Amino acid sequence: MANFLQVQILTNIEKLAEGVRTGNIRPLAKAITLIESRNPDHSADAVELLDNLLPDSGNSIRIGISGVPGAGKSTFIEALGMHLIAEGHKVAILAVDPTSQLSGGSILGDKTRMEELSREQNAFIRPSPSGDTLGGVARKTRETMLLCEAAGFDVIIVETVGVGQSEVTVASMVDFFLLLQLPNAGDELQGIKKGVMEVADAILVNKAEGDNRPKAELARQQYENALHLFKPKSQNWIVPAMLCSALHNEGIEELWQAVQGFKVKMQSSGEFDEKRKLQANDWMWSLVLEELKDQFMRDKHVAGMIEQVQAGINAGVTTPGAAARRLLEAFKRH
Amino acid sequence: MANFLQVQILTNIEKLAEGVRTGNIRPLAKAITLIESRNPDHSADAVELLDNLLPDSGNSIRIGISGVPGAGKSTFIEALGMHLIAEGHKVAILAVDPTSQLSGGSILGDKTRMEELSREQNAFIRPSPSGDTLGGVARKTRETMLLCEAAGFDVIIVETVGVGQSEVTVASMVDFFLLLQLPNAGDELQGIKKGVMEVADAILVNKAEGDNRPKAELARQQYENALHLFKPKSQNWIVPAMLCSALHNEGIEELWQAVQGFKVKMQSSGEFDEKRKLQANDWMWSLVLEELKDQFMRDKHVAGMIEQVQAGINAGVTTPGAAARRLLEAFKRH
Repeated sequence: MANFLQVQILTNIEKLAEGVRTGNIRPLAKAITLIESRNPDHSADAVELLDNLLPDSGNSIRIGISGVPGAGKSTFIEALGMHLIAEGHKVAILAVDPTSQLSGGSILGDKTRMEELSREQNAFIRPSPSGDTLGGVARKTRETMLLCEAAGFDVIIVETVGVGQSEVTVASMVDFFLLLQLPNAGDELQGIKKGVMEVADAILVNKAEGDNRPKAELARQQYENALHLFKPKSQNWIVPAMLCSALHNEGIEELWQAVQGFKVKMQSSGEFDEKRKLQANDWMWSLVLEELKDQFMRDKHVAGMIEQVQAGINAGVTTPGAAARRLLEAFKRH
Repeated sequence: MANFLQVQILTNIEKLAEGVRTGNIRPLAKAITLIESRNPDHSADAVELLDNLLPDSGNSIRIGISGVPGAGKSTFIEALGMHLIAEGHKVAILAVDPTSQLSGGSILGDKTRMEELSREQNAFIRPSPSGDTLGGVARKTRETMLLCEAAGFDVIIVETVGVGQSEVTVASMVDFFLLLQLPNAGDELQGIKKGVMEVADAILVNKAEGDNRPKAELARQQYENALHLFKPKSQNWIVPAMLCSALHNEGIEELWQAVQGFKVKMQSSGEFDEKRKLQANDWMWSLVLEELKDQFMRDKHVAGMIEQVQAGINAGVTTPGAAARRLLEAFKRH
């Protein structure tokens, strides 16, 4: 009986995997729901599903897009998405928004923001998994990306907001990271955050339209100048600073050509595959370390000491070295 | 007998601590040697010594200095150090150079590079602890810094090279991080590395002398413009881009005034102490995580599987999630 049940479950997962591979949205959505489930009983199924579909994943370009609220991310993604669909691509749009629980989903929660795109059969829009840590949201989005690829989506767009480490996290799961900026470069409200300039593969100044155009060109130039001060990530890619007007569908084709040029160059130098392998390895290690840290923090001897030890550090009576040693000894004794 | 011996050891450490507090160089050097020892028998003594001296540490400004080879770090540090000693300060100069084993110590190894300073009684120059990982070198330098403070050094300068993560590591142990640059800003050879622009509290263009001066001013302006594009780390500090000629002793006093201005502003806003507490906490957690990771990697079941699991990821037959789970299960079973 137990055996029979197990065979049943296996078959269900295999069936689900088969369904995802057909490219139908319904099984894809069901598979994502399984991946996102917090029910511990589902996690073995989720692993099995992913292992089953992994060989069919990877055939895409993964694009991360970030920008401050008001930079026009939705309008831009809609314009890019429609352009790609017209070219025959299948486009999946995912989101990493660790605040979605609190804010009710500031991005993609409301599909009406991408009205045209959401009506297209070859577009799949999925809001951010909600109510989780950034790490949790990132894990689910990475896995959803694999499912979308297995379902035949060949362009994956991951949108993010500039909250905490979300941009750097998204950059670590995509091939190409695009930073969308507004025409006023020196504006404090859209100042580039720690670590973001360095992960950008292109900077795109949006809203370069009408009266804004000269300001946009000036901003573009400022970004271009600043980019020259940094060591290039790759000898084979000079990070461009470009202009677009998503509203008027201008600069969209140029951006897409830059992305394709990037892919060709990275593939011929071997960096494309290398980066994906590195990302997968880093991801594995961050999952391992996260779990080790969780186990450590959950240990009741450690948990009972942390407050005291940190108070000692803050008061300047314990060195971090001695404090770490004490916590580790408490953990070992257990 | 065993008890007697223990009392002896305790007394020795207490005597050593007392010696450090007198400000004499000999016990300080001996204490640093103890901190740097790889003999596991010494580590309890080292912890005791640090705990003993901790209440006497902290009364300093900790300055990190980085720059590409040829930026003139030694000349600059010598000029700044002599200036500070003339003002009545006691200056300790430490180094974080994870390559010192390989290169025979590219920085500070050769004291003749700071000829004048090395003859001063109120200067203490200590080369990088050698033959260790960046983490190991950083730990020892952090602790040496505390010893120097307990010995009455009120300005601690930590010099580093731009290898790997060494700049970001040094930034995480100092109050003020200074990036020394050459007059040719767009030069690829000195391009600013990932993460370094964001940790800088000031950028100083050195060699602003003779024919170089207009180029230096242009570079300074380029850095200033670029800095405007970033979100400020603190509402109370605008990162300045400045000029100096260490060779001609120009701009040294101005830089020191900037450092002092920074300290006053950060202290009055509470950020100075806050940052030190945060650094100490982060340091403790990084020591804990490093040890947890080491234990994991040393586990023979894990060690035996890592290669296979990584091959699976690289070949695209295992997801990072499944791989992490397998390693964690092997670790748990053990």
